[in-house]
Amino acid sequence: MSEFKLHCFAESGNAYKAALMLELTEQDWDPVFVDFFKGQTREKEWREQVNEQGEVPVLEHAGQTLTQSALILEYLAEHTGQFGARDAAEKREIWRWMLFDNHKFTAYYAALRFIYCLKESGETDVTRFLRERATAAYRIVDAHLANTPFMVGGRLTIADLSLAGYVFMPEDTGIALEEFVHIEAWKGRIKALKGWQHPYDLMPRVAL
Amino acid sequence: MSEFKLHCFAESGNAYKAALMLELTEQDWDPVFVDFFKGQTREKEWREQVNEQGEVPVLEHAGQTLTQSALILEYLAEHTGQFGARDAAEKREIWRWMLFDNHKFTAYYAALRFIYCLKESGETDVTRFLRERATAAYRIVDAHLANTPFMVGGRLTIADLSLAGYVFMPEDTGIALEEFVHIEAWKGRIKALKGWQHPYDLMPRVAL
Repeated sequence: MSEFKLHCFAESGNAYKAALMLELTEQDWDPVFVDFFKGQTREKEWREQVNEQGEVPVLEHAGQTLTQSALILEYLAEHTGQFGARDAAEKREIWRWMLFDNHKFTAYYAALRFIYCLKESGETDVTRFLRERATAAYRIVDAHLANTPFMVGGRLTIADLSLAGYVFMPEDTGIALEEFVHIEAWKGRIKALKGWQHPYDLMPRVAL
Repeated sequence: MSEFKLHCFAESGNAYKAALMLELTEQDWDPVFVDFFKGQTREKEWREQVNEQGEVPVLEHAGQTLTQSALILEYLAEHTGQFGARDAAEKREIWRWMLFDNHKFTAYYAALRFIYCLKESGETDVTRFLRERATAAYRIVDAHLANTPFMVGGRLTIADLSLAGYVFMPEDTGIALEEFVHIEAWKGRIKALKGWQHPYDLMPRVAL
């Protein structure tokens, strides 16, 4: 039995944050497939037994169950001694970007991709709204990356892994990603890391 | 000069999280009014000098500048010794709910209120979408509060103060709040705390 179990599915960029961290730090882990598209995370039983917040990722390790990608990332940084903060100021900076990611950067992009690309809604007022919000968040991260190779401390940290949740997803959300040149360069640096894998190669994918 | 300065405006529930914490812990603080509705947080100068993420709250204390409400709450819990975690497990539980708040509970409700109530958009596909998402988050918090008076550890913590950011805002978002009986009871418990104040009484409010 592997040391870590990650409840996940390939289309979830939030799960990818944890999966990529496990992979980059060379942990012994297995995915547990969650059938999100058939409503598993909304089932009463799943919420009672796995996560009352109704979300992946969920990480099981050493008798503990952890949820929320940012907390899982911090837990793994502490456990592995990799990609975490070097001091209190850096820790705050890392969390500042993980919170911004949860609130805006990942949040709007993931909602847009889900509706527009996976549910194939076509263009609607909702997709236009989400694209505008996602784009505003992308601009802020792009401006930050104009001056630094990674988000915090000049090296890869869990802040990068959090923000990178959805940036490798192949679906076209209608955002002109090539305009965010600093994000594109940063994605290249992450992709070049030893052990990097694409979300669709790292986690089980349901046939839609 | 007061010990703390909080960049804020009354309509911001995210700023209210920090303001209420400062007030409940009886800190010496002053608000610095941010003219959000005239676009101050989008100005290049404000972003360079105050917060590149373009958001309130921003807290200044002892030569430090802090952003992101959850980080500010944790900083104040440590500084004051109040409403923080008692151990590592509780800390994780508090952060789990603060993250859920940032990602879903506050996020969708605040966006809905801004568009529907403050910008008076009328009912649109976007307001319907945001209301559905906000309601799903409310259901999860309501279910959790069915079994406990406060979110974590049976007493008020910063997890409650984070989730309470927008729940006292008076504008009608079209969500039937009275159906969330456990949230309503929890709001009553928070309102009864010594020092509690309504956001519109605690922070400067621009005449719209």
